[in-house]
Amino acid sequence: MALSKNTIKFIKALHLKKFRQKYNKFIAEGEKIVGELLLQDDYAVQEVYALAEWVEKNTSRGNFFSSPVHVVNEQDLKLISQFSTPNKVVAVVDKPAPRPQPDFGNDWSLYLDGLQDPGNVGTILRIADWFAIPRVVAGPGTVDLYNAKVLQATMGAFLRVNWIEMSLETVHTAYPQVPVWSAEMGGKDIFSLPIPAAGVLIIGNEGQGVSAAAQALVNQQVAIAAPVGSGAESLNAGVATGILCAAIRRQV
Amino acid sequence: MALSKNTIKFIKALHLKKFRQKYNKFIAEGEKIVGELLLQDDYAVQEVYALAEWVEKNTSRGNFFSSPVHVVNEQDLKLISQFSTPNKVVAVVDKPAPRPQPDFGNDWSLYLDGLQDPGNVGTILRIADWFAIPRVVAGPGTVDLYNAKVLQATMGAFLRVNWIEMSLETVHTAYPQVPVWSAEMGGKDIFSLPIPAAGVLIIGNEGQGVSAAAQALVNQQVAIAAPVGSGAESLNAGVATGILCAAIRRQV
Repeated sequence: MALSKNTIKFIKALHLKKFRQKYNKFIAEGEKIVGELLLQDDYAVQEVYALAEWVEKNTSRGNFFSSPVHVVNEQDLKLISQFSTPNKVVAVVDKPAPRPQPDFGNDWSLYLDGLQDPGNVGTILRIADWFAIPRVVAGPGTVDLYNAKVLQATMGAFLRVNWIEMSLETVHTAYPQVPVWSAEMGGKDIFSLPIPAAGVLIIGNEGQGVSAAAQALVNQQVAIAAPVGSGAESLNAGVATGILCAAIRRQV
Repeated sequence: MALSKNTIKFIKALHLKKFRQKYNKFIAEGEKIVGELLLQDDYAVQEVYALAEWVEKNTSRGNFFSSPVHVVNEQDLKLISQFSTPNKVVAVVDKPAPRPQPDFGNDWSLYLDGLQDPGNVGTILRIADWFAIPRVVAGPGTVDLYNAKVLQATMGAFLRVNWIEMSLETVHTAYPQVPVWSAEMGGKDIFSLPIPAAGVLIIGNEGQGVSAAAQALVNQQVAIAAPVGSGAESLNAGVATGILCAAIRRQV
């Protein structure tokens, strides 16, 4: 059955942050992410719109169908998808209830200081998930977690890593004893530093780097040492974050 | 002056690998990459097509203009560009003469085992450049270096890192003593291993991993250890390569 104009209009509204905030819902897309969401207790999947082939393939997994599933044709899927080549299934999901206030004195956190590139932000969540870094703090100006490209790049990591929208000042005021490190070109080689049990690592904006407001709270600038003969001016924000997290988690 | 139909047709042909091979030329785009190319001795920039603002800004840099510069309007730039939002300048460049056969016994090489994603391949060249890894070997099935998105993602690193199209079998036959490592989920934690002075590190295809042909030549499978509590199934190929290169270059 074809989707109604109102349904299409509602789903397309959720492509925009403004309406995701207004309705407190978001869109999840693709076999992997929707599949994982349907297995989670803390996400309420309101509606699933999927090609017949996806529904058939998943019929054996009974728990998938506690959410209403609508079979749609390829044309309608394309209308409601945020991607030019949709991946079989689109779901409308309630944003989860906020988790309890985290304990920043327990383990490391990443602080995204106005990161703009959705691919970078999603990749960083995936890195945090891999290295069991329990939370990522999105500072002012950081792209919305529920942006389609962010969710896609997380490969499902947003289901496990705690995403918190908060300024560094707020974190620091509540946890003044937790060290704040920033990734900076001139910083100290992170592989040469002793790693505290807890800390906040700031990843600066792709173009502007670490903001003045955040810099004022930094205890230690860290960097990835480049050997003699290095030519590149910098590393991509996702790659740099991966290496810094590996250094934080290394077994010495 | 507007560009002729033949000029537009020729430049657009170079958007395709087939014609880049036929004419032995490629397209470089954007202020950063074209700017760097014009300062290099080993690249012959045949023609530059740029907005008036780019030409005015660069008039003071005399050496830029040993290549013919054509002022184009935004419409023509858009016609010849490979991007939907072109960045001021497009250049037609001769592919460089092949460098002398490299000495694989000298330092590390990365081997791309059929990598398909242009962003990953460009990012990996940028990582090699940062860590002064002198060469990247593109195995069969790997995306073309001169693909627009690969060049863009390198941020200019392709000017410094030697790109070699060659199979792993050919490398191994010539340098049987050089150890071959592969990045594999079940491999040994690379931070726990002594690092030889030279080696080849295989990065597998995004979906299929390391090919059977390459696996047959592997001496050591290596991995990035995930701590207790890790949730992600994998890391992005670029991020994983960055961490593995950091491990290879670490000062212990």
